[in-house]
Amino acid sequence: MKPMPLHKAFTLLEPGPVVLVTTGDATTHNVMTISWTMVMDFTPSFAITTGSWNHSFAALRKTGECVIAIPTVDMLDTVIGIGMCSGMDTDKFAKFKLTPLPGKQVKAPLIKQCLANIECTVVDIIKKHNIVVLQGVAAYFDTARKEQRTLHAVGDGTFVVDGRKLNRQALMASKIANGLYNANK
Amino acid sequence: MKPMPLHKAFTLLEPGPVVLVTTGDATTHNVMTISWTMVMDFTPSFAITTGSWNHSFAALRKTGECVIAIPTVDMLDTVIGIGMCSGMDTDKFAKFKLTPLPGKQVKAPLIKQCLANIECTVVDIIKKHNIVVLQGVAAYFDTARKEQRTLHAVGDGTFVVDGRKLNRQALMASKIANGLYNANK
Repeated sequence: MKPMPLHKAFTLLEPGPVVLVTTGDATTHNVMTISWTMVMDFTPSFAITTGSWNHSFAALRKTGECVIAIPTVDMLDTVIGIGMCSGMDTDKFAKFKLTPLPGKQVKAPLIKQCLANIECTVVDIIKKHNIVVLQGVAAYFDTARKEQRTLHAVGDGTFVVDGRKLNRQALMASKIANGLYNANK
Repeated sequence: MKPMPLHKAFTLLEPGPVVLVTTGDATTHNVMTISWTMVMDFTPSFAITTGSWNHSFAALRKTGECVIAIPTVDMLDTVIGIGMCSGMDTDKFAKFKLTPLPGKQVKAPLIKQCLANIECTVVDIIKKHNIVVLQGVAAYFDTARKEQRTLHAVGDGTFVVDGRKLNRQALMASKIANGLYNANK
């Protein structure tokens, strides 16, 4: 799990993968599965939809921190399993054999088994709409990981796996931040 | 473009595809490309990140309406082209040979060439965060369309095409709304 430039972290969420969100600290932690996320800017900041119906929400509000972890297709049944039980009565890291790794900026753990992790702080909670606004403060990517295809939840119990990648960087050169374009040419 | 049940419309956005958002009416309309969207509930309501840097934002604010249209992989260069010019000086429907179709609940046009369309009304604008909250009020799906694979923008000039679909409906039966599960069994 190597550090990656923070200004590229929005590219982990922009494609809309299902993600895991961890809260807590090294000893008391929890994790939830969510698909309702949105990039808000390149710094990066993100929105997620959550509220008191999720056990993680209390920790998110109390600690003001979380980690967004990006699972891949080989983790599908773990992703679903995490979404089907509650941290109220289950130690999900133990149940799903997830390895918590310490972050640098926040106490919520990274997940070793995931492709990427983004440490985040809570910058606002818009109660009226159940939106939590997050600021990414550090990002990591497991460059040694062979399986890199992420999952997209449809919401009806089916999931779409990443397929072909199409490159339009030349066409979009004037629109892409220089750091991104040069790194991917 | 046939009507689809409104309670299924969130499944069009939950996988995180790049979308087109139309504003205006039958004669004066505009369209923008965005990836920064989020499902907020099943009714459905959605969040999008936009602001005055997008020409469409003024119309969105003025009319309180828009249509979210879902393009497919064969429309990639149109999707990019729409994102590379501005409605300020370009008639994008004409330039990209898009056919506006009348909706039922809002004046903003559906796009005939897209796989699906969701008519939306603006329910809130959270200025501080550049978030526009939308309520879906009608949805349509082109069941006759052969190409149904959508696109996921990475944000660096590359795009991921929908790949394999994995079905976990049996595993998730207790979590999926009955109407969705039965319709897809």
